Amino acid sequence: MSNNTYNTFTDVNTLGEFGLIRDLTAEIRHCQPTSLLGVGDDAAVIKNTGEVTVVSTDMLVEGIHFDLMYTPLKHLGYKSVVVNLSDIYAMNAVPAQVTVSIAISNKYSVEALRELYDGIYTACRMYQVDLVGGDTTSSPKGMTISVTAIGQASQADIVTRKGARPGDIICVTGDLGASYLGLQILEREKQVYLAHPGVQPELEKSQYLIERQLKPEAQAGAVEYFRKASIRPTSMIDISDGLASEVMHLCSQSGTGAFIEEGKVPIHPDTERTALEFNLDPITCALHGGEDYELLFTINEKDLDKIRFMPEVFIIGEMTEASEGVNLHTTGGNIHPITAQGWNHFRES
Amino acid sequence: MSNNTYNTFTDVNTLGEFGLIRDLTAEIRHCQPTSLLGVGDDAAVIKNTGEVTVVSTDMLVEGIHFDLMYTPLKHLGYKSVVVNLSDIYAMNAVPAQVTVSIAISNKYSVEALRELYDGIYTACRMYQVDLVGGDTTSSPKGMTISVTAIGQASQADIVTRKGARPGDIICVTGDLGASYLGLQILEREKQVYLAHPGVQPELEKSQYLIERQLKPEAQAGAVEYFRKASIRPTSMIDISDGLASEVMHLCSQSGTGAFIEEGKVPIHPDTERTALEFNLDPITCALHGGEDYELLFTINEKDLDKIRFMPEVFIIGEMTEASEGVNLHTTGGNIHPITAQGWNHFRES
Repeated sequence: MSNNTYNTFTDVNTLGEFGLIRDLTAEIRHCQPTSLLGVGDDAAVIKNTGEVTVVSTDMLVEGIHFDLMYTPLKHLGYKSVVVNLSDIYAMNAVPAQVTVSIAISNKYSVEALRELYDGIYTACRMYQVDLVGGDTTSSPKGMTISVTAIGQASQADIVTRKGARPGDIICVTGDLGASYLGLQILEREKQVYLAHPGVQPELEKSQYLIERQLKPEAQAGAVEYFRKASIRPTSMIDISDGLASEVMHLCSQSGTGAFIEEGKVPIHPDTERTALEFNLDPITCALHGGEDYELLFTINEKDLDKIRFMPEVFIIGEMTEASEGVNLHTTGGNIHPITAQGWNHFRES
Repeated sequence: MSNNTYNTFTDVNTLGEFGLIRDLTAEIRHCQPTSLLGVGDDAAVIKNTGEVTVVSTDMLVEGIHFDLMYTPLKHLGYKSVVVNLSDIYAMNAVPAQVTVSIAISNKYSVEALRELYDGIYTACRMYQVDLVGGDTTSSPKGMTISVTAIGQASQADIVTRKGARPGDIICVTGDLGASYLGLQILEREKQVYLAHPGVQPELEKSQYLIERQLKPEAQAGAVEYFRKASIRPTSMIDISDGLASEVMHLCSQSGTGAFIEEGKVPIHPDTERTALEFNLDPITCALHGGEDYELLFTINEKDLDKIRFMPEVFIIGEMTEASEGVNLHTTGGNIHPITAQGWNHFRES
């Protein structure tokens, strides 16, 4: 099942820290003219083009955020960059640089690290960002990856979580819940594999869900569209912890309530089918699954006509007065209060 | 011996991830007007004031970079910020923001994390930088800290590792080797303590060395002096891996050789005394010890007069043609080639 097996195993100790960094960064070619100085000095130097610099950082820990039994290292590298870029887009800014720090135990070979960096560079090319710095060190156990993404913007373009007003329309850029079900399938097949190592996992019919989990994409296109169509969302957040949790964030920071129309929440047919297979309610997966990396944003009603031409967008609800709370309007005509039950790594452990 | 014991133990799970972040970031007060948006959104927003943004990142791993048996968590927090600020100063820029990500196992209490953050905030106040972002997550084992420091500068002020020319004067901002010997003492006392838990460690007479190890400072004053005195070093690096390794970096990137005068390398009397106690050559500790966080820089000969008035500076050598190599001129009149033998965490493990 594991994709992380290699024909050769070169111990990272043979290269030393500097040698390893040289090996992993040898193929860096900057694509951004603003990347004045990258890997190889005390710090990276980035040319300021906008009025503000936008910075976001995330840490991914083996055994908490990823399981190398079913996560190919190339995908892991790709995803670790993408989830950080997603945070920059969520500010309505465009990322241009990343730094990547990794701590690894000596169970990882140089070949394994090259796979990881192959994924990192693939994400960099795909999103036109440059790897300009980082740190590589050893760890007594497991792997930890810390990525910082950096972008520039005009101050007026920045969209935070707190600008929404009652009456604003709530939109999302894509379908929800798929990534969570992809993870459930991978976990199930892992258990089957552990019990019966000879059995080949059944992953073909779940390709879409697994790809949403292992290789998510950031919503660069949405931010590009906002610029072209002169739309400035009133608030925005990326969906990493689940729709419910993110709606609550927008509401609490904007001082509003909200309702979400259950029937309008986009759910992929594969998500629907697989949720039922797992005896789960599809809307629960969409609300609380997380790791979708779609953008959740609000717009003023007057921008509704502009948003209709957006290639991928779903109108799922409306902001209300804070006193009305945060509710789900079910297809059955009921009103249920929404509570945040997103990923909580501290409660899981 | 350990300072990391507390009267109360509040499990981090009781707060959850969001609760924990709220608890740890409640006392944040920005001191930089450029910190437009800090913790609590998808990304931090920093006002651009200079022409360029300078970014540096480091990862500290328990069991590799620090031993909590003799490292108070407050000191660890302080040091993890300072070593990153040091990298920004090494570019001749001034840091204004940091992001801090931590992964921790459930052996750490909320009280322990508050100690760590107390150190982080103390460093922030001392160096007038704002904590504007980060990530807090659990880890299956141990603690990992990743800090990113961000500063702004004029492009013309930036000093890299590659601008030195033959004839340039090599300077350092303070004494070397103390931090390494502080670590040796802490390691020795740890072994004594493990063998005889009742014995109190003897640390009083080694206070200077231990402080250099546990609570290093970044050289903000040097960069401020450069600005006031209109000095632009031709190359600069901070000493984290040891003088020898850093001189080699400047030479290889500048395409020069260098000589260092053994008798001019500043070594504190306590370093000298303790090195002999450990049967070590003091100059070896200064060359290869590391973690001094002093600035090593080169200046054009014509700036020599300006540098003489710098409060803390030592002229230790000169850049030469690359063909002459990198050498130590010993007090005995011999010439020894310098080789890099700095910390190599991959070779250690």
